[in-house]
Amino acid sequence: MRWHHGAESAKRLPHDCLKSEPTKEKNMDCKRFIKEQTAELKKEVGKSIAINALSGGVDSSVCTALGHRALGRQLKTFFIDNSLMREGEPQRVLKIFKRMGIPVQLVDARKDFLGALKGITDPEQKRQAITDTFYRKVFGRLVRKTGAKFLMHGTILTDIEETVAGIKRQHNILSQIGIDPKKEYGYQVLEPLKTLRKDGVRKVAKALGLPAELAKRIPFPGPALATRIVGEVTEARLKTVRAATTIVEEELKNSGAFQYLAVLLNDYATGIRKGRREFGQIIVLRCIESVDAREATATRLSWQKMERICARITQIPGVNRCLYDLTPKPPATVEYV
Amino acid sequence: MRWHHGAESAKRLPHDCLKSEPTKEKNMDCKRFIKEQTAELKKEVGKSIAINALSGGVDSSVCTALGHRALGRQLKTFFIDNSLMREGEPQRVLKIFKRMGIPVQLVDARKDFLGALKGITDPEQKRQAITDTFYRKVFGRLVRKTGAKFLMHGTILTDIEETVAGIKRQHNILSQIGIDPKKEYGYQVLEPLKTLRKDGVRKVAKALGLPAELAKRIPFPGPALATRIVGEVTEARLKTVRAATTIVEEELKNSGAFQYLAVLLNDYATGIRKGRREFGQIIVLRCIESVDAREATATRLSWQKMERICARITQIPGVNRCLYDLTPKPPATVEYV
Repeated sequence: MRWHHGAESAKRLPHDCLKSEPTKEKNMDCKRFIKEQTAELKKEVGKSIAINALSGGVDSSVCTALGHRALGRQLKTFFIDNSLMREGEPQRVLKIFKRMGIPVQLVDARKDFLGALKGITDPEQKRQAITDTFYRKVFGRLVRKTGAKFLMHGTILTDIEETVAGIKRQHNILSQIGIDPKKEYGYQVLEPLKTLRKDGVRKVAKALGLPAELAKRIPFPGPALATRIVGEVTEARLKTVRAATTIVEEELKNSGAFQYLAVLLNDYATGIRKGRREFGQIIVLRCIESVDAREATATRLSWQKMERICARITQIPGVNRCLYDLTPKPPATVEYV
Repeated sequence: MRWHHGAESAKRLPHDCLKSEPTKEKNMDCKRFIKEQTAELKKEVGKSIAINALSGGVDSSVCTALGHRALGRQLKTFFIDNSLMREGEPQRVLKIFKRMGIPVQLVDARKDFLGALKGITDPEQKRQAITDTFYRKVFGRLVRKTGAKFLMHGTILTDIEETVAGIKRQHNILSQIGIDPKKEYGYQVLEPLKTLRKDGVRKVAKALGLPAELAKRIPFPGPALATRIVGEVTEARLKTVRAATTIVEEELKNSGAFQYLAVLLNDYATGIRKGRREFGQIIVLRCIESVDAREATATRLSWQKMERICARITQIPGVNRCLYDLTPKPPATVEYV
């Protein structure tokens, strides 16, 4: 992590997560943050090419906008369709960035990811398969194609803390867990947001002029719907959890909650459909209040809302249960995998 | 089912589920019901011996009290500890019946049931293993020992309807699914409650003078905690779901809900405990409103209550999630297996 460990960074930047407290985000100076980070990026990349992946989440969107401000055409941004996205996500995100004048290339890697996930049920192996497919296979291809020496990534402080603590392996943490990306994957990683938590990222998004649609977007993890499927990730199961996600996001978009999502369990439960037994799938509705994703509590949704979501979700073919997750973080996490 | 298909029963009894509507339970004449059923039982059993199993649920408790009123010492009542019971259940139930002057013998069949359930994860196979162990193995032993020709059973109308509809195989339904108990198991089954639904059974319980503790007891299925474990039933998993059951019953005993229970899923979810990852078990809290168990809706519990239950349940070793089941019946059932 040369980029953040330069001689001056510890003194000049209050953002180095390893040496100081995170930015006090209530009072953070977004303009200064943006100025410092663009300067750092320019200095680091020099005349080389950097690439980054845009997922449409607020972290990678801020990273993309910041990177383009710093590097212009030296930054190549790719949207990788990993088949784990929400309904209509690639089209929606590409349209937004087109309007902002930031070029983004769509990469269809659905077969790569589905192939790598086939037969895997262990959560850590699942995350590992996604990490490897993402960094080694798909990005390896793009690095060779673009000649990029740098990969810019939207890692935030919470990701690092959770990975270091061994809670989960974030898909975007490498150095912190002893992987040298240059040696392992052939490129160097830049993480301009790694001193911020989620609320800081949202402030920077606003300061960068990102549309509210992106700046206010609820968190969506990199491995996306794969973290919301307990058990094997298949096209059929992705279809089920994607349908549930659409319902939950429609119903809760005005809830003001920090994050809301649908999880497909691997278990089945006995139910009744048209007077006959149905051995059905189970969807968990998760909706949380949080400031920065470090801690969270279950939102006290109205019963009308929960009952309505349940009624809609149990109309998805094969689903006959809808459960609401009551558990705070800790002892739970937000996602399931 | 000779007992209910006698020449007069269709006319005299309005309770024959196959030929008429169930007793209008709001206006039912409990005294007449008790009188008719005791007369039928006496006539049917004659000078033979009947046996029955008491589980402590309201159905089998009413069956036991009714049977003893009709048959006195000709009825041998056994409490079979199948290892699938709630905490302290055998002792509690035996004490209540001792106070009522009804003799009950405790049979330790824990090893029989745990052995039969070993390695089984399919819900129907699980119910089948319990049925076979109960009727063939354990009751076979007791029939030979007592010389009984009749087995009295607390089957109610809802059990029959659900089994006939193929929703689930109730542990106590035999004839309705084409099994001749005399041929298969060596005895004849008497089902004096088979024209009643749950609310009718509670009224009869009261009329028979059962203590409120039993009459008002929430429903507890015959296969007991085995229907509340998705996946394999083992001693360790029974311990977990039993601990959760104790918490749920303590917290909701004054809720006025029709039924409340805890289910242990087979899935695991990622969580955090003492700053480290924990791959934890999931308990589902189920609490329903219903008149007769045919249809049900999830109780609108208070958030304080749900959060308190969640906090207690996630203190059970190995459990880090607590989910509330929002689903009505249909499309769900009350239990999971």
